[in-house]
Amino acid sequence: MDSIEEFSVRGRLADTGEGITADELQLAARNHGMPLEGLRYDVTPPGLHYVLVHYDIPATNAGDWRLELNGCVEQPLSFGLTELRAMGRRTIRVTLECAGNGRATLQPRPISQPWLQEAVGTAEWTGVLLSDLLRLAGIREDAVDVVFTGADRGVERGVVQDYQRGLSLTEAIDSGAIVAWEMNGGPLPPQHGYPLRLVVPGWYGMASVKWLRSIELIDHEFDGFQNAVAYVIRQNLDDPGRPVTRIEPRALLMPPGFPDFMSRHRFVAAGTVPLFGRAWSGWAPIERVEVSTDAGVNWHEATLDALGNDELAWRAFAYDWEATPGEHVLTVRAYDASGREQPIEAEWNRGGFSNNTAQRITVLVT
Amino acid sequence: MDSIEEFSVRGRLADTGEGITADELQLAARNHGMPLEGLRYDVTPPGLHYVLVHYDIPATNAGDWRLELNGCVEQPLSFGLTELRAMGRRTIRVTLECAGNGRATLQPRPISQPWLQEAVGTAEWTGVLLSDLLRLAGIREDAVDVVFTGADRGVERGVVQDYQRGLSLTEAIDSGAIVAWEMNGGPLPPQHGYPLRLVVPGWYGMASVKWLRSIELIDHEFDGFQNAVAYVIRQNLDDPGRPVTRIEPRALLMPPGFPDFMSRHRFVAAGTVPLFGRAWSGWAPIERVEVSTDAGVNWHEATLDALGNDELAWRAFAYDWEATPGEHVLTVRAYDASGREQPIEAEWNRGGFSNNTAQRITVLVT
Repeated sequence: MDSIEEFSVRGRLADTGEGITADELQLAARNHGMPLEGLRYDVTPPGLHYVLVHYDIPATNAGDWRLELNGCVEQPLSFGLTELRAMGRRTIRVTLECAGNGRATLQPRPISQPWLQEAVGTAEWTGVLLSDLLRLAGIREDAVDVVFTGADRGVERGVVQDYQRGLSLTEAIDSGAIVAWEMNGGPLPPQHGYPLRLVVPGWYGMASVKWLRSIELIDHEFDGFQNAVAYVIRQNLDDPGRPVTRIEPRALLMPPGFPDFMSRHRFVAAGTVPLFGRAWSGWAPIERVEVSTDAGVNWHEATLDALGNDELAWRAFAYDWEATPGEHVLTVRAYDASGREQPIEAEWNRGGFSNNTAQRITVLVT
Repeated sequence: MDSIEEFSVRGRLADTGEGITADELQLAARNHGMPLEGLRYDVTPPGLHYVLVHYDIPATNAGDWRLELNGCVEQPLSFGLTELRAMGRRTIRVTLECAGNGRATLQPRPISQPWLQEAVGTAEWTGVLLSDLLRLAGIREDAVDVVFTGADRGVERGVVQDYQRGLSLTEAIDSGAIVAWEMNGGPLPPQHGYPLRLVVPGWYGMASVKWLRSIELIDHEFDGFQNAVAYVIRQNLDDPGRPVTRIEPRALLMPPGFPDFMSRHRFVAAGTVPLFGRAWSGWAPIERVEVSTDAGVNWHEATLDALGNDELAWRAFAYDWEATPGEHVLTVRAYDASGREQPIEAEWNRGGFSNNTAQRITVLVT
């Protein structure tokens, strides 16, 4: 083999009963989810927050980092970290989730990063409002989309690229996106975009371009690989599909009791078991969470914590379960203020995106 | 099913051609390796350092944490974090590697945490020498082994347990082990043992008990599950085997060029390609690293960085490769000052431990 295309092919679906492949395992060993006991923390410690890196973590240096802002602007600008810091300092709490979360539980399974349900995390990101940067440069009338380019280089399906995503100008401004240089009060860890990244509240993680080096306003709809080809919800290869955008509602329980090492099966003692978890949606605040302890036959409303200032960050919920001996299946679902409700089983799609199928935890009560 | 034993069974070997199982994927999604570009850093940032948690990360609190020191001592002692900090402050740079690193590349594959080759990391750990604590309590003549117990509870092969490992009294003292409350200058992250853990330089990670709450000196050899059953190198179930102890020599290259997203295949442009990596051994300092760019036919000595103060921490190496168009297989091997050399192919064992088979990276030069 002597061409890049031969080594870089379109994703396929797993055959019936096909185990996780060597390619999927390579990705699972590099990238990681948040162990579900990480739901315990209001703000996820950096090493527990999920990470998905498309290519390699690039070698970067805050000292000489430049962010270019150009295209359909009155005045192209270039910023170093010092200049950005001088522009202000805004901290927002954001729940980020990978668009592929839940992919490996789909039937048939799209072969890619094989997430189960833990590709999530909540962090406090500090930076400057993207809209402030755009206004400083002066948005020209012909601007349509905003294109963000990272320093991470790789190839997907034969296309050599620097990771790049576009947002409409409206979303770039209205989403409250920030250009961030801190995570949880410290410099960004390398795997989260050091020294500079975009953070787009409410959107799946692919929009929050890491190692951000360029912002370009363009006069047409962005048709780059990650927008037009990769992150698209389609039923088959001919389906034009619709883009992956905001995070669908989801609730996750912190699995109670203690686990078996290998099967991760859970064991708890009979009695009152306080169940706890978090729920989020990128569309609107969470307004209701329901818990079932009998595999979805009966549902009980959980108690929700007060809504914080950052309305799209996850919300804690709790429910006291009177656990009786035997095997039980816990499940949970979230409802948001936009009227969206989490399905028991989400609709399948070929890329395995936005799969917010309800979590199921089997527990043996002893 | 209504007993813990039914859900918690002995590990098995994968069938020929059997893909990674759902159980293995659950572990791979929770635990994570160090993406190999993390070899770039002398000290691994916490979120990039490998993590293996047997059960759940426990809920812990530095404020009321107690470490009990008892058993065959003159005077049982109990320490809070403040008391430990008052005893001194020693910082050591340690390379930790999971004993199961490389497991998923074995044939047949032992089914457990499916590491490829990235279960490693180097950190600066700050704490107090274990030997200082033991001397303060007064080691009795009858003391044989030292047992370390963490706050993490779970079940393995039907045995409900708090994670617990033993070291001989000699190793506990001579290894230079510390009881650490800082990693890389900050509090331990939850997944690395917050607020207190043991760090045993030179030993595979299973010895460095996290969430450390008890140190007990006993008058016999420790026969707990993790020493006598789990971490044992055996060829079959009847083999009494030998314990997993110190880290076998290994070298890893930072894969050059850029990757394909899915296959992780690498691409570089022809010309001089600076290869860089790290090598380590838990037995003695690394004294030689060899690189091959033709799948092991010819070997070239790499340039080693100066040996640091912490002789068992990894050592950087470099080699300039004159890359010509076509497909090439890079491989690398390490030699330490004890006379141990890394094999091209390590011996198989049923638990998949200490697999230091040489890394192979296929690169397409364009």
